[in-house]
Amino acid sequence: MIEVEVKGYADDGVFERVREKFELIRKEYHEDTYFRHPCRDFAETDEALRIRVKRFDGHFEAFLTYKGPKMDTNSKTRKEIEVPISDPDRHAEILRSLGFEEVLTIEKTREKYYVDKGIVIDLDDVEGLGKFVEVECLTERSDIVEETVKKLREILESLGVKKFERRSYLELAMGKEV
Amino acid sequence: MIEVEVKGYADDGVFERVREKFELIRKEYHEDTYFRHPCRDFAETDEALRIRVKRFDGHFEAFLTYKGPKMDTNSKTRKEIEVPISDPDRHAEILRSLGFEEVLTIEKTREKYYVDKGIVIDLDDVEGLGKFVEVECLTERSDIVEETVKKLREILESLGVKKFERRSYLELAMGKEV
Repeated sequence: MIEVEVKGYADDGVFERVREKFELIRKEYHEDTYFRHPCRDFAETDEALRIRVKRFDGHFEAFLTYKGPKMDTNSKTRKEIEVPISDPDRHAEILRSLGFEEVLTIEKTREKYYVDKGIVIDLDDVEGLGKFVEVECLTERSDIVEETVKKLREILESLGVKKFERRSYLELAMGKEV
Repeated sequence: MIEVEVKGYADDGVFERVREKFELIRKEYHEDTYFRHPCRDFAETDEALRIRVKRFDGHFEAFLTYKGPKMDTNSKTRKEIEVPISDPDRHAEILRSLGFEEVLTIEKTREKYYVDKGIVIDLDDVEGLGKFVEVECLTERSDIVEETVKKLREILESLGVKKFERRSYLELAMGKEV
């Protein structure tokens, strides 16, 4: 599965326009812990390994996610493999035993909005980084990535987004240069 | 949790004595896939990473297990961290993306017998390796490992086991020297 994703900087105005225009799916709280590979420099290879603990509507879910390198130059499209896990603490303990080290944990609130079939907008308020808006679309087809990216950028522009961002929250938190 | 475990070579006689003397918990079918670490020689460090797919009574369960180095010289006692996983194929795909390679898959049938509080005997019939009997006990206390090992060896000897084996099925399948 390919996650085609475009992210931009947001402010209260962008948040309000999304809230007025689209239907709220739910509000989630994310605690994302990122891991360093024991012998591969993820900053270099543009990969990531994450345990996400998600809380919403009284539920609790956790996922282990591998993100492959970005697949183009103007979006955040990547190969993503995600599996649900039931015991994130013990899972992290296995990763640590294998030499994966925790880099940092990023906390955010995410409001998810339904835009259109397969298209979702996330309003993210990230601790220490501020407000962002992401629009994403999952696809199996790598041949339509480019036109999808264009469409997603237009959606964000129509909402008032002026500055886009390809770096992940992890990269932004680590102060990675563009 | 420490898994204190003693394993010996078995034959039909040993299997029959266990079947007569103890209560069958259940019969399981195991498909164990072992992984090579991307930059650590598990044969050297005496660790293991395994995905076990277990089938029994019409159920299906899968686990990701890290096994640390053996903790003494006359048993198979190790630190073990095990988590249930719901999608072993995708989990294996994440491991492969991280540079873990599948070494081999070992299939066996296992009959589990209840011996005493916390003590279980496994009758293993391992494809390509033959019959084995394992007796194991899980404990949090590292100070009683030695006496537990002695007790477990005595149980196996009383069942007719003459030859013990500290090597894992993986090591035996790979032809590791004693």
